[in-house]
Amino acid sequence: MATKDTAQSRQGTQLKTPKGTRDWVGQDLLLRNHIFDALERHGGVPLDTPVFELQNILSEKYGEDSRLIYNLEDQGGEACSLRYDLTVPFARWLAMRSDIQHIKRYQIAKVYRRDQPAVSRGRLREFYQCDFDIAGIYDPMIPDAEILRIIAEVFQAFDMRITIKLNHRKILDALFAVAGVPYDKIRPISSAVDKLDKMSWDEVKKEMIEKGLSEEAAEHVGLYVQRSGTMREILSNLEADANLIMNQNVKEGVADLKLLATYIEAMGVGSKVSFDLSLARGLDYYTGLIYEIVPDRINGQSTQVGSIAAGGRYDNLVGMYGRRPMPCVGISFGIDRIFTLLAERCKSKKASELGRETDVYVMAFGDKDFEGLLVERMEVARQLWDAGIQAEFTAKVRPKPQQQFSASEGAPVAVILGQEELDAGQVRVKQLHVGDRNAAQKDKGQLVARRDLVEAVRALLASRIEGS
Amino acid sequence: MATKDTAQSRQGTQLKTPKGTRDWVGQDLLLRNHIFDALERHGGVPLDTPVFELQNILSEKYGEDSRLIYNLEDQGGEACSLRYDLTVPFARWLAMRSDIQHIKRYQIAKVYRRDQPAVSRGRLREFYQCDFDIAGIYDPMIPDAEILRIIAEVFQAFDMRITIKLNHRKILDALFAVAGVPYDKIRPISSAVDKLDKMSWDEVKKEMIEKGLSEEAAEHVGLYVQRSGTMREILSNLEADANLIMNQNVKEGVADLKLLATYIEAMGVGSKVSFDLSLARGLDYYTGLIYEIVPDRINGQSTQVGSIAAGGRYDNLVGMYGRRPMPCVGISFGIDRIFTLLAERCKSKKASELGRETDVYVMAFGDKDFEGLLVERMEVARQLWDAGIQAEFTAKVRPKPQQQFSASEGAPVAVILGQEELDAGQVRVKQLHVGDRNAAQKDKGQLVARRDLVEAVRALLASRIEGS
Repeated sequence: MATKDTAQSRQGTQLKTPKGTRDWVGQDLLLRNHIFDALERHGGVPLDTPVFELQNILSEKYGEDSRLIYNLEDQGGEACSLRYDLTVPFARWLAMRSDIQHIKRYQIAKVYRRDQPAVSRGRLREFYQCDFDIAGIYDPMIPDAEILRIIAEVFQAFDMRITIKLNHRKILDALFAVAGVPYDKIRPISSAVDKLDKMSWDEVKKEMIEKGLSEEAAEHVGLYVQRSGTMREILSNLEADANLIMNQNVKEGVADLKLLATYIEAMGVGSKVSFDLSLARGLDYYTGLIYEIVPDRINGQSTQVGSIAAGGRYDNLVGMYGRRPMPCVGISFGIDRIFTLLAERCKSKKASELGRETDVYVMAFGDKDFEGLLVERMEVARQLWDAGIQAEFTAKVRPKPQQQFSASEGAPVAVILGQEELDAGQVRVKQLHVGDRNAAQKDKGQLVARRDLVEAVRALLASRIEGS
Repeated sequence: MATKDTAQSRQGTQLKTPKGTRDWVGQDLLLRNHIFDALERHGGVPLDTPVFELQNILSEKYGEDSRLIYNLEDQGGEACSLRYDLTVPFARWLAMRSDIQHIKRYQIAKVYRRDQPAVSRGRLREFYQCDFDIAGIYDPMIPDAEILRIIAEVFQAFDMRITIKLNHRKILDALFAVAGVPYDKIRPISSAVDKLDKMSWDEVKKEMIEKGLSEEAAEHVGLYVQRSGTMREILSNLEADANLIMNQNVKEGVADLKLLATYIEAMGVGSKVSFDLSLARGLDYYTGLIYEIVPDRINGQSTQVGSIAAGGRYDNLVGMYGRRPMPCVGISFGIDRIFTLLAERCKSKKASELGRETDVYVMAFGDKDFEGLLVERMEVARQLWDAGIQAEFTAKVRPKPQQQFSASEGAPVAVILGQEELDAGQVRVKQLHVGDRNAAQKDKGQLVARRDLVEAVRALLASRIEGS
């Protein structure tokens, strides 16, 4: 055994991340900032909860998906599991914080599911979610409309065209009831209908009949759930159906959606919404509006990643912890799937493009007796750092010119030190031009006094921003 | 048993986070931005690694502290553990990425230790670390000096006075050897000496003798390790000691530290450094410079939190994974301890001070037949959001004036809608003054045309920033 372990360690065969996990580096992570901007624009408060929760907090929240929960080993003490989503920890936190009556909160964090991973499609065992939720008692559909607006803003920041597929649990459950689906079969039939975006109607119908639904009821369900269109279209459709509109749940759902249609038009997102009566969503805890965001086809091609965000209203989850009820509505963005889509556009990064951001590269040149001016480069970098400017220099005592130029790749401005200029209390500053390093080496830049350095650098940085 | 569980769930006694963990909300999290600013200023690339690693990646890295590692339950598949620090995952990543020759990376993430928690002193089982490391072959002590500069910048951003206690593993190990500590006792004696910041010399000496050191050797060690002072003082001290300076390790360490003294003076952080020959650091993997950051006493009182950042040079860790060697130097900031210190200054936040940031609150007022102008408030909010401005409004159809004013708390600017003004294509904008809401209600603000709204709001926001 010892021999085998040693051999493995020498060959490094175990040098990997655990199955279904990956490292994130550089610009991928910086993409999150786009999301933060939108969430802060709507007054969200950041929340962060532990990566594991007591097992009783998570139990009975996820139905049959509970088998995908990761448990910590029993090393004595409390039984804990890694979080499965960010919604349940938020509800647990709200239940504990009885001082909070209203809150908009956001959280970007990793969640854990022991599922079969498919890395190329952005399906991982450890993956980022970003949640924005509005909790508290408000007038109907106003927070729901704001969530839809936030969704539109986030994807606009990524320059991604999307459709918000939307449905209402009350209407959906009433459709099933009117079509003759027995009460105890509503969730299984609902989950079959939810597959209409991946399977044909005939396949879905077959699954429903296998689940014990009559041919007739299945056909009836089919009449309803194969409809989708704009909010206004489907709403008048439902209102024109005398069978349906008599149903109290349909009435309430239609009233909600009429309000919503007005509000999302006022907020400028009406055109992104498609009312899709087949949308069902797996989780049990939704009580009202539900939605799923899908990327629009690119050149007629559908993407491989499926939905990239989803959410809905869950008015009873906080109350399940026995302290107090609290209506909530929210959205979870599937950050990794969004990254996967964006990465297809940009292709993968080389080591030199890891997203390092430097504004200024401090260099020094001289003749063949040149000592490197290291301390002087440090002092100049310090002057820039003190002014809050990003600056780097080559960590060599006597760096070669070519070494310094290639290390400066990506920095828009250089400060160049020479013994003669330093003796006169001066340095050179100049702009570095992407893809034209040779020209850049010929351009000698401008001489400035040391005490004017920060100002001169700021002017060059500003002119670049204006010019870009 | 079932009865007891039900009762517990009704009383909500299990409604808590796991032992040694906590939720973070609002401004506490925004404090991280100060750290990010400094790390980006030095050209760092963000890295994020999985929260759990294969167990063989973590094994034999933490000595006897390995017992504190959290394992995942064996649910089939690979044996995994939660990460114990961010240094080992970084080394694992570097070992895998053979394309990377040089990198500065930072990572803010949680780490896990099954230790006895002490929440009031910022000691938790799940806690944030922020690491900045420089990997690659450079000329001696240049990256080390930059790390010390970054430490100074981070704490300056928090307006915290600190001392960087610093030592060199080569010098420390040589002192022990010269004092007559047997080679196999160097690490245990080193860990006794490391307690000199918490225990008296007599207690430390007692521990060394209990660990098998002779009285004479212990006294000899004491002569060395009770010295601390500026770099220059202790260096000339060491050089004046003929016994020591003959030792090759002491010679090399002194040469390193002389370079370092010059470099940190150039970078403006020399005055923050104290050379402390008793500093030893627990972890085995350090090979050169080591340091620990302690907050300065406030009004003569020492704080309860101990060191708030620590690090050093570890040139052999990456090579332990068998692919290639890679010298590294870095720092880990103990974010939670820093938060604990800062929170003592600011005291805890009320629900209303959770750190929500809103620039503009959109309100509407009218007479007693007032319909609330909800859609119009939405349209104005949309106009501001489209321009990238943070804006909120009350999610009520007919909100009361007082309701809107108290909800606007914290927003510097209000946009006020009235039917009459809207009919004329106008709205009012005005500044809201902290702590003087009554005065604010009397000030009617200025009338602007809807099309000039964004410009007018921007001007008011800018004048506030200049005025502050």
